[in-house]
Amino acid sequence: MSALDYFNFDQPFAFRRGGRIDGVRVAFETWGALNAQRDNAILILTGLSPSAHAASSARDPSLGWWQDMLGPGRPIDTDRWFVICVNSLGSCKGSTGPASIEPATGKPWALRFPELSVEDIADAAWAVIAHLGIARLHALIGPSMGGMTAQALALAQPAACPNLVLISSAPQADAFAIALRSLQREAIRADPNWRGGDYDSAHWPLAGMRLARKLGVMTYRSPQEWTQRFGRARIESRIASPFGAEYQIESYLEAHAQRFIGSFDPNCYLYLSRAMDWFDLADHGGTIEAAYQQMAVRRALVIGVETDMLFPLAQQEQMAEGLRLANAAVEFLALPSIQGHDAFLVDFRRFGPALARFLNSLR
Amino acid sequence: MSALDYFNFDQPFAFRRGGRIDGVRVAFETWGALNAQRDNAILILTGLSPSAHAASSARDPSLGWWQDMLGPGRPIDTDRWFVICVNSLGSCKGSTGPASIEPATGKPWALRFPELSVEDIADAAWAVIAHLGIARLHALIGPSMGGMTAQALALAQPAACPNLVLISSAPQADAFAIALRSLQREAIRADPNWRGGDYDSAHWPLAGMRLARKLGVMTYRSPQEWTQRFGRARIESRIASPFGAEYQIESYLEAHAQRFIGSFDPNCYLYLSRAMDWFDLADHGGTIEAAYQQMAVRRALVIGVETDMLFPLAQQEQMAEGLRLANAAVEFLALPSIQGHDAFLVDFRRFGPALARFLNSLR
Repeated sequence: MSALDYFNFDQPFAFRRGGRIDGVRVAFETWGALNAQRDNAILILTGLSPSAHAASSARDPSLGWWQDMLGPGRPIDTDRWFVICVNSLGSCKGSTGPASIEPATGKPWALRFPELSVEDIADAAWAVIAHLGIARLHALIGPSMGGMTAQALALAQPAACPNLVLISSAPQADAFAIALRSLQREAIRADPNWRGGDYDSAHWPLAGMRLARKLGVMTYRSPQEWTQRFGRARIESRIASPFGAEYQIESYLEAHAQRFIGSFDPNCYLYLSRAMDWFDLADHGGTIEAAYQQMAVRRALVIGVETDMLFPLAQQEQMAEGLRLANAAVEFLALPSIQGHDAFLVDFRRFGPALARFLNSLR
Repeated sequence: MSALDYFNFDQPFAFRRGGRIDGVRVAFETWGALNAQRDNAILILTGLSPSAHAASSARDPSLGWWQDMLGPGRPIDTDRWFVICVNSLGSCKGSTGPASIEPATGKPWALRFPELSVEDIADAAWAVIAHLGIARLHALIGPSMGGMTAQALALAQPAACPNLVLISSAPQADAFAIALRSLQREAIRADPNWRGGDYDSAHWPLAGMRLARKLGVMTYRSPQEWTQRFGRARIESRIASPFGAEYQIESYLEAHAQRFIGSFDPNCYLYLSRAMDWFDLADHGGTIEAAYQQMAVRRALVIGVETDMLFPLAQQEQMAEGLRLANAAVEFLALPSIQGHDAFLVDFRRFGPALARFLNSLR
């Protein structure tokens, strides 16, 4: 059923912050066909939690996380483009990460996994592209954390990344996002079942994960949307436990948490979350502006959402401006979507045409 | 050292949602002198956590939570006004609440304390005012949760509350605020030390309280302020524990949490937090507008802050509009303070003159 392919490193993978490990593999999925000139490839890098399964295909007809964006005749048109989506290094959806088995011990790496950076995730994604024999991408698309990874890749492989789409992302983690993610990590670490990362596979730190996920969902959407969708609507039968849920917004958060907490490895979550906090383009050349100068972006589409509290519009403007100063032709869109950071996952009416137009206008 | 006075109910206190208990007392503090006409009294109702000690006095020279706002020659001028600040019923700063001893058992009430509503807090505050022989307040001032309580009091005792100051408050809890507070409560309830509310006095659910408080502080301020104050500044020595704090924003949150978690009773926090979720003016007459019609507010000052994510500006506008429709003369200020919901506690340059002007303009 799975449409995943794997690239296996035959050399140890060297992490930017130190540490090398053997046996690293990267999971990816593809749609469409690479043309003879090998110049119609589009790489999608993901946010923190999605897998490489962005959309359905003949091999895996299940719906993907960007289903309406990607496919034949869709905004990212797989009749025309060869599309690759990579599962981030450090994740638990096929690529090697803290939940993978450490060969020497036969147990999960857990906190013995090397410190992970966004730059490592970019290096791992690039290995897939090189393996496919692609020297230059038609476009590189990164929403959320994927936009951080895309910028790291455009820095590491400038010649391969002339056309860049950054969606609700950031040139560096800011204080509010760091605060939020540090709280999510604290919730997991404070769960007695976490046990310093060596949790029993039958007893995950689910209470901590539940809190972390709910806190995430709170910042992925917007107060305005929830006022419209839920207001003060109550659930039909108040949960009997003391201080149990009474309002629909509470059961909405609970439903989101329940879908997530059994399926995403807690240590992987911690590693990817911390990698985002560490991300700072200014580490490459001293300033954000200097980092953009080291890329070779010719055209860029930067999309932000007015109601995004996690990756605020000011950061989208900062990316657009940095790329402009580095001589890219930049289209900047500030969308009035009400769904906050998650708008790119749901507001296809606004995001779809913008992406299609940009991709089709590239030479 | 304490300047607290107490009002002791000689009858059982009847809670609006059901339940009556004996021996209820309400702690309060006063500044200045009541005049012969008994018409120069100003009542301040507090947010969730502050005590009645709003400012220093001869009896208690320690700094209060609204120190720069209140005192001789200050915006709320105690040379002119007789100022009363009441500790909320349900709190743990002198008034009866879930942390108080249940006479029948000799143990804390904990979850056996009756369900608490904002209306109950208003009823208890009113008992203090009546006890002081005051029939009509010169002004009633409520920031944050105190603004909810002030509106409940203006509904219950309309003749006593002709002049109202609402600061960063709301006519009802909205979905985002409910979501946030439900997460804070979940963090406390998920702490194994909480034990269904019957925690050992030597083993409070501090990990849960720490998360709850940090989450609060995150929404009391604004991302813009933190970008300015902290940006990506690191702490001097990274905490050695896995995933320990690295950024100044993290140690800022930790310092705030440490000041709070040993001094505020967890069950009191849960009760007051839930009371805010339940608050809805529309419970009084079917709509918010109908509730304002039942008050007898002649003049009102409504102040909101553009960066407040917890009590957003739209809710301040809603209160101002509701009061206007009920024939009050309303002054509405939308302040550009960068400190979010907490601005009234720190941005005295903006809040002070606005309050002084309003109070001095009242007949």
